Parts: sequence; C-alpha cells; structure tokens
Amino acid sequence: MKSRKGSIIGEPERRHNMKNLLVAQSGGPSAAINATLCGVVEKGLADQNIDRIYGAKNGIMGVLSGKLIELNDILSDPETLQLLCQTPSSALGSCRMKLSSWEENTFEYDKIIEVFRQYNIGYFIYIGGNDSMDTVYKLSEYCRMKHIDDIHIIGAPKTIDNDLVETDHCPGFGSAAKYIATTFSEIACDCNVYALPAITIVEVMGRDAGWLTAASALGRLNGDPAPDLIYLCERPFSVDQFLDDVRAKMAEKHAVIIAVSEGLKNEEGDYLTDALQNRAADAFGHKILAGASRYLEEILRHEIGCKVRSVELNLMQRCASHVASAADIYEARFIGMAAADYAISGGTGKMVALRRTSTKPYRFEVDFVDITKIANQVKTVPDEWINEAGNDVTEEMIDYLLPLIQGELPCTYHNGVPVHLRLY
Amino acid sequence: MKSRKGSIIGEPERRHNMKNLLVAQSGGPSAAINATLCGVVEKGLADQNIDRIYGAKNGIMGVLSGKLIELNDILSDPETLQLLCQTPSSALGSCRMKLSSWEENTFEYDKIIEVFRQYNIGYFIYIGGNDSMDTVYKLSEYCRMKHIDDIHIIGAPKTIDNDLVETDHCPGFGSAAKYIATTFSEIACDCNVYALPAITIVEVMGRDAGWLTAASALGRLNGDPAPDLIYLCERPFSVDQFLDDVRAKMAEKHAVIIAVSEGLKNEEGDYLTDALQNRAADAFGHKILAGASRYLEEILRHEIGCKVRSVELNLMQRCASHVASAADIYEARFIGMAAADYAISGGTGKMVALRRTSTKPYRFEVDFVDITKIANQVKTVPDEWINEAGNDVTEEMIDYLLPLIQGELPCTYHNGVPVHLRLY
Repeated sequence: MKSRKGSIIGEPERRHNMKNLLVAQSGGPSAAINATLCGVVEKGLADQNIDRIYGAKNGIMGVLSGKLIELNDILSDPETLQLLCQTPSSALGSCRMKLSSWEENTFEYDKIIEVFRQYNIGYFIYIGGNDSMDTVYKLSEYCRMKHIDDIHIIGAPKTIDNDLVETDHCPGFGSAAKYIATTFSEIACDCNVYALPAITIVEVMGRDAGWLTAASALGRLNGDPAPDLIYLCERPFSVDQFLDDVRAKMAEKHAVIIAVSEGLKNEEGDYLTDALQNRAADAFGHKILAGASRYLEEILRHEIGCKVRSVELNLMQRCASHVASAADIYEARFIGMAAADYAISGGTGKMVALRRTSTKPYRFEVDFVDITKIANQVKTVPDEWINEAGNDVTEEMIDYLLPLIQGELPCTYHNGVPVHLRLY
Repeated sequence: MKSRKGSIIGEPERRHNMKNLLVAQSGGPSAAINATLCGVVEKGLADQNIDRIYGAKNGIMGVLSGKLIELNDILSDPETLQLLCQTPSSALGSCRMKLSSWEENTFEYDKIIEVFRQYNIGYFIYIGGNDSMDTVYKLSEYCRMKHIDDIHIIGAPKTIDNDLVETDHCPGFGSAAKYIATTFSEIACDCNVYALPAITIVEVMGRDAGWLTAASALGRLNGDPAPDLIYLCERPFSVDQFLDDVRAKMAEKHAVIIAVSEGLKNEEGDYLTDALQNRAADAFGHKILAGASRYLEEILRHEIGCKVRSVELNLMQRCASHVASAADIYEARFIGMAAADYAISGGTGKMVALRRTSTKPYRFEVDFVDITKIANQVKTVPDEWINEAGNDVTEEMIDYLLPLIQGELPCTYHNGVPVHLRLY
C-alpha cells in the first residue's frame, strides 16, 4: 500500500510490473525547484504503476555514488508538501556536473544504469537548467543506443535565468522576477527620501540573458518611480552613452535608479568588469571580484560626482521564497506532475515545456520537447523587446512578464521566520 | 468638522484654543517610520483640540523652507492609512540635518518659530533617530529659553540600528531584524545545496551597534543551519582569530555562513576596510568602497582557497516592508499616537520610549524620557550578550530579539507587486 495517508483505501493487488521512480535536482537554486519535486512526488504517490519514490542527493552525483533517499514516507502528508513548496533551493541538494561523452568514457553511464537496476528505477525525472538537460540528453541517448527501453528519462526545466529554449518561460523565473519587481519598488521609496541628487545602481543576476533585469520594470505599473534606466546584457554597453543617459535623467529628477544585468559587456564583447579586474590583479597580485554595478558606481562618482550607491540583489533574488509568485509555484508543481506522468506513460528523452496559449487572460499548456533541441542553448531577450536607445524595455516585454509574477502564497512562519523543510 | 469620514457625528463647536499639529520624518529610511506617521495623524484626526494636521517635506528642512502639506484630507480613510503603513521609507521625505547651536546662530530657530506661527502649530512631532532627537532637544530648549510655552515638541524614535538609549528598542528595528532573520534562513537553504566546501559572508548594516547582525541568529530557532559564526562591531575583530574560527567550522561542515557587521573594527579601533581603501587609493588614485564582507572574502579566498562569496543586505534590510514585523508596525503606530497625545496634553522636550515589562510573554508600555538623556548617544550591544569567543550571541540576546519580529501583516499587491502610497 502507498504510504500517503488516505490516498488509497484497502490493499490493492500489487502489480507485477511496478517500478520505482527516481527524482533529482541540479544546477543553481531557485524558489520553485522544490515545487517541481513536490509535483513529481505527488504523481508518484498517486500512480498505481509506481512503488517506491527515491530522491538522489546532489543530483546526478548522488546517482553515481548511490546516495538515494526514499521519499514515500517523509513526503506523505499535505503539510509537509506545503513546507517543501515554501522551501527555497534544492531540498535534495544539487550539483554542477556534466557527464563525459560516452565516446570518451562509458564508466559514468554504466554506473548510473547499475544503480537504476539496483533500485529498480523505471523512471528518472531530472529537474534543472541547461547542464541538467545535457544530462537528460546524454543519458536518454545512451539508453536508446544500448536498447534499454525500460528506463524513461524526462527533464523538468528550472532556472531563474529563464534562458532555456523551446519553453515560454522556466519555473523559478517568476518568483525571482517577483522578488526583483518588489525590491525595486521598495528601493524606489527608499532612494527618493532626500532632496539631494543621488544615483542608485542595482545589479541583477544574468550573465548571458537579461530577463531578470527586465523584471525590474514591473513596479512602474503601480506608479513606483523606478528604475529610470534599464540595461540588459544583450545590447553592447557604451560607457559614454550611459553617462549621457544618466545626465539626462539627473536633469529631470534628483534620485535616479538604474537596473543593470551582471553580464553587461562592452562593444568588444568583453565583460565590463574584466578591465577593472585586470587592473586590480596588477595592483594587488590577484583579481578582485567587482560586479558591473560596483564598476559603474566608480565611474559615476568620478564623472558626475553626486552620491552614488550600488546594490547587488545577489542570492536573495533566487531564494526569497517568502515572496514567491503563486503562478510560478503552481506551474512548477504542475510541471513536476506532468514530467512524472509522461515518463510513466512511456515517454523518454524529452523536456517538459510551457506553451503560452494566451497572454490576456494568461493561459498555458504543457508540451514535451525533444531534448536534442534544448541542451546547451541559451534563449536571450529578443532585440525588439529592448527600446531603441538600449536603456529600457518595451511594452511587449512587460506584457510577457506580468502574468508570471501574479499571486501571493500563504507562508508558514514560526518564531517570526518562514519554516523550511530539510530532507536530510 | 474633521474630514475623517465618520469620525465625528454632527458639527462640534469649534474650540477657540484649537491648534494645528505638525509632523515630520528624518534620518534613514525604515519599514516602520510611516506607521508612526499614521499613528500621529490618527490621533490628530480624532482629537478635538486639533484643527489641521500638517506634514513637513524632508524633515526640519521642509519646516525651514515652509514646505508643508495638509494631511487631513489625503490621509482620511482606513485604506489609505493601511497603504501608508506598508510603504517603506519616509512618505514625507527625509533629511540629514542638525540645527546649529543657537549660541552660534538663532536664524534657523527664528525661522522655524515663524513658520510655526504662520501655520498656528501648537504641536510638533519629529520622527527620527539620533540627529532628529538632537533637533527635538535644541528646539524645545530654545522654546524654554525664550519662554515660548504654547509650542510642544515631542520626538518619536525610529532607527533600524536600534541604537537610541533610554528605550528598550526602536520602531523600524523589528522589521529590519525580521527581514535579516528571514533572509539568513533562506540563504541557509541556498548555500547548503552543493557538496563542496564553500563560505558565504553576509554583511549587515550597523556602523557602531551590532543589533541587526545579531538578528541573523533567529532563523536557527527553526533549525536553519545558519549563521555559523556571528561577528558584531562591538568586539575588536582579529583576522587571525577569524581564520581559526572559520577553519574549525570548515572541519565540521562543508557550507559555512558568516554574519558580520558592516562596522567591524580591528584591535586598534580602525574600520577593517580602511586599510583596503587606502591601498586602493594608492593604486587607483581614489578610494574604492569595499565593505567588510568583501574585504573578508578576499582574505578567505587567499588563506583558505575554497569557494567564497560575500553578500551585502544593503538597502533591502531597511525597506523590505512586504515582510515587516507585525509587532514592529503595531508599536510604531502606537508610538505615533502616544507622541501626539502627550504633546496635546501639554508635554514637551521628551522622546517616547518603550519599556519592556515582560519578555515571556512579551509586554511593553510607553514612557516619556527627557530629551536631554537621548540626543547624541549610542546604545551598543551589552558585552555579556556576545559569547566569550566573540563569534556568536548568547541566549539573552535571542530572548531580547525574538518578540520584536513576531507576526506578519497582510500586504496589498497590485500587478503582482506591493502597493505603496506617495504623498507628493
């Protein structure tokens, strides 16, 4: 009998072909990755084809080293699953590991299949970003090549960067976007209190894609006066143009707030901070890690001379579960269920994707995309969603982003602090 | 008749001695300073001795320049007052200005009294921190000296730093502490995902007092594994001892999280970052603003060599109203009412203070402290609330902090982002 309380009445006949389900998480943390885990587990608990549900610790590394946790009992009640959904980051742990190609080395592949056999795994759901989809691709291809047709491998997307192709957006992005929009709207209140000229530069995550930085614009819909300028990493960044833009804004208002992607690059395609780091390496004997905002802070202080401050949203933008987007958490959970369902139905070598069927009102459906189309590609912001001057986003971008940050979730607090679930 | 809808039935006889009430906000932003403004306005609207309620823009600077806004109509309904309470920072604007001493120059004093007379101000409530209490002190002393007995001046405390003397704690501190505790508990989830050695240093505001940094410990009550080490600015900081502490923690666990006050000072009493800044000044021709965490990040990377990251909680810790402490907002509003009430009753030259009458269960009462005891002093963390090794806080500190972060408030969102009130 399944251990989920009340889910099955009586003792059903155990099917001979029951298999076990394995789930793992990989890549950088997000506020929604545990909601996808929750969806996978819920589907596994409810499905009569599944016996045990295992979670691998630290992604594919945990599979390779046989570190599996049985989840049926510890994730069997609704209260625990709710806490799981409000716990940021990967409850099963994560890794940043790409499998070698099997032409080079089949050792990792053979070891993974051995562990799958040992635990009678018929279905493997890997939740993650680009590198994780590379693992789904290689592993499912290896199985196909070796004619292993009783192991089904499906990828469930997750990345705050929103840079996976073939899906409208990625679970985790909406919650990060909501944190960013909320924080910009609060910083707008903070930075406007003094009647003195002041510039605040806020740096948002995104080395190669500016989606998160674009989300800084959403508070403006409520009338919050920020940000005044937005620079995404997709457009080459000119310091001279930047200074002109800032001076023009300072002529209009005393407090100017600027959103920048961490991955801003100059017209030669080099990260803005490379020059600074090399200069520091010469001076100190080693590089210093200065972000784009710190670099621009120095330039503005020198060139404009008023009060300048830089703020990095840093880890908070990917782990602030207490202000998660209800839409994001709902979709993340749904994707987990869909991934498990598809695998159990015999699918393999696919990633679950979200198709937007309507923006106003917002509607989506899930699709399953061939994993060969996904791995090792990056979806950047379309050029037409950045304004001509390269210092703001367009209405199309706002329309795209807005549905993804809608809704707030109840959050369980204890001792005045949100409660988090620890699986081990 | 008062313009607050429904607050007064019929047209009461206008008293001949009715005066107007002036309120202003000063110093750094907090999530609770508008709740105190709300309390002042509510008392003013309800009190039959008060005719008009004015707010000065940008603190005492707005009084000096006669920039007063009438608040009766724009803050007359409960929905607006609720939005005011969830709006961070000073809705009336702020300033950082100390009055000259009147021995040097009575011009500012005479100008202020002139504006008070022009607007028939009988009561002035100044909400702020240390510098604002200096203004309350000087202005009330000046009135006493000049035998002006129909202007009553009361200070209402506000500072996230919690460093005002003669009060158990300060409104604004509890909400900042709740943000810090919440964020550390989320960062604890984030930093523990990989099975690799990693150190995260999180820098918390506080140049001279470590109260906010101490609040990082509160998530541990729920079992969150962070922070592992806590360094307050009250204790001299030894880099050698710090390295020993970190190495000892790294021997126990792979992910170590460290909380540090921005104002850490070495054994000679110099800010840790002074040396780095001077070195940068030599190398670059100007100082670079590197915080304590960035400085320690460089040291750890060099000395220990694992992955090291630094995070500054920056502006977010003082403006994250969406996760404000209900206890803090309640007290802030209560203090605003009490300040106005005391002034209207004839009091002057005092600051409202909070007395804790019981910790378990938490109980407080308000008191009115002679302003001469407050201004220009700093309340630091008692040495006995820091552990002997100087790398953590004691149980007494936790007991003190815990009641101040209790409770969550409903927050009105629109377009997925909290709504904020703009008064001008």
